[in-house]
Amino acid sequence: MGRTLDTSPYLIAPDPASARLTRAVTGTDQTGAEVALNVVEERPLTIYLNAQEIVTAMTIGDYPQYLALGFLRNQGMLKPDDTITGVDYDEELETVVVRTASQTTYEDKLKKKTRTSGCAVGTVFGDMMEGLEGVSLPATPVRTSDLYALAHLINRTPSLYLEAGAIHGTVLCQGNRPLVYMEDVGRHNAVDKIAGWMLSEGISADDKILYTTGRLTSEMVIKTAMMGIPTLASRSGFTAWGVEIARQAGLTLIGRMKGQRFVCLAGEERLIRDADPAQVADEPDRSGRKGAA
Amino acid sequence: MGRTLDTSPYLIAPDPASARLTRAVTGTDQTGAEVALNVVEERPLTIYLNAQEIVTAMTIGDYPQYLALGFLRNQGMLKPDDTITGVDYDEELETVVVRTASQTTYEDKLKKKTRTSGCAVGTVFGDMMEGLEGVSLPATPVRTSDLYALAHLINRTPSLYLEAGAIHGTVLCQGNRPLVYMEDVGRHNAVDKIAGWMLSEGISADDKILYTTGRLTSEMVIKTAMMGIPTLASRSGFTAWGVEIARQAGLTLIGRMKGQRFVCLAGEERLIRDADPAQVADEPDRSGRKGAA
Repeated sequence: MGRTLDTSPYLIAPDPASARLTRAVTGTDQTGAEVALNVVEERPLTIYLNAQEIVTAMTIGDYPQYLALGFLRNQGMLKPDDTITGVDYDEELETVVVRTASQTTYEDKLKKKTRTSGCAVGTVFGDMMEGLEGVSLPATPVRTSDLYALAHLINRTPSLYLEAGAIHGTVLCQGNRPLVYMEDVGRHNAVDKIAGWMLSEGISADDKILYTTGRLTSEMVIKTAMMGIPTLASRSGFTAWGVEIARQAGLTLIGRMKGQRFVCLAGEERLIRDADPAQVADEPDRSGRKGAA
Repeated sequence: MGRTLDTSPYLIAPDPASARLTRAVTGTDQTGAEVALNVVEERPLTIYLNAQEIVTAMTIGDYPQYLALGFLRNQGMLKPDDTITGVDYDEELETVVVRTASQTTYEDKLKKKTRTSGCAVGTVFGDMMEGLEGVSLPATPVRTSDLYALAHLINRTPSLYLEAGAIHGTVLCQGNRPLVYMEDVGRHNAVDKIAGWMLSEGISADDKILYTTGRLTSEMVIKTAMMGIPTLASRSGFTAWGVEIARQAGLTLIGRMKGQRFVCLAGEERLIRDADPAQVADEPDRSGRKGAA
């Protein structure tokens, strides 16, 4: 299990050696002995849409532009037909400003809502559900052999999680190849960074699989569907609403994926069961990977 | 490990048998066989402070009044000297309205901020840091024998986590006794429910320990300090900023607590090392409990 492999299949892989992403701190262990630990960084990043301040996210701090773009897209604040004219990151101010050619409809909506309710926080969720209504996911088949291969590769990829813990990972995959592996202190940030990368690079979502270490909550399912990705897989468990939304949106939802085991709670008809689970090495009960948290 | 014990030490314990908190869903496993799973519920709850809509939280749905009170208190929107005249939950509308005798200063602030920046989301974090400045935590000593006893008890308490997974737990403790064990889909909600209970019952924080299954992020550390609790312990890992804030606020911070192991990264001088770690049963590498997620 300790073996790592070269990360060549990845377009973007974690960079656990980056000095900016972890910090050495010293403390004591249970015996009172001094210990030095590498812990992940966590920084505020304030996202603006044109002149409008939208949110301050707590992030590990890599790929701030992707995070801003992906957050705005996944919240439905940036529409597919908005023309993006700039994404400006200011490291000192800890801000990203996303600029569009014309004012987005979201800014109008926000002004209206803030006039009536005084605060936009409560509207974000409603907007996300609203954004889902127009989403139609392709019925892309999923090979179980690819799912097993992906889990095997991803679990052995050097990562901040293996280096410092206390972080979530999300990986954009195609067939049996993991393409972009993002990590962040919040799993929603990791997903948003992938969405921002896809938007920047003009990547099609139709044939992609999203793999996450985190739970399959409504937020994760909505974000995946908003990104147009038809398949979401996780080591972790489900929430009832996450399952319900996946079924409504036509998303293939696979959870509790460990070793040879998994559970499919939506999109069963799209699974091509071309792998014999008995031939897949089962995971020892504890592998240094995340549990069902 | 499979043994459970009666939950008599608790004032509030998880209720994994409650029909309202989980739902049975059916799917397929890796062999294609049908499986039935209990998964946790997740519901929106919109919190109002007087006439002001503040936020829509995603929650498992138990203790909505505690969640609303605790959220507002931990965000610094409710000050200690605000007189609460009502906490009204409407199950159908999925709302809680917290009413105060006079308008809180937060409502003024919110109106001002929404006029300038149009949105209050980004201000929440700033307000939390601002609220921390006045916080002075008592230098309460912590016995390592109590920490070990608490972890042992809590890990064996019947819970939604053991029943359905995909949920976080936070426990308010005193000495070696766990008092209030809250679970929720977001760990911040579990903490806020405890804060709401403490506020409702007028519970002193000075001699309490907060135990959580989740990571020790800045948000968790800030919330604990805002609650006036001098000690925070977790099975999971740290973020750099969480450690920094704990050290500034004078909070005793203990993480990676599994079996006989733990790491103390702040408040070492308050630890009374009255337990011999070698006498504590070490946890098998996998115990059905959360990892460092």
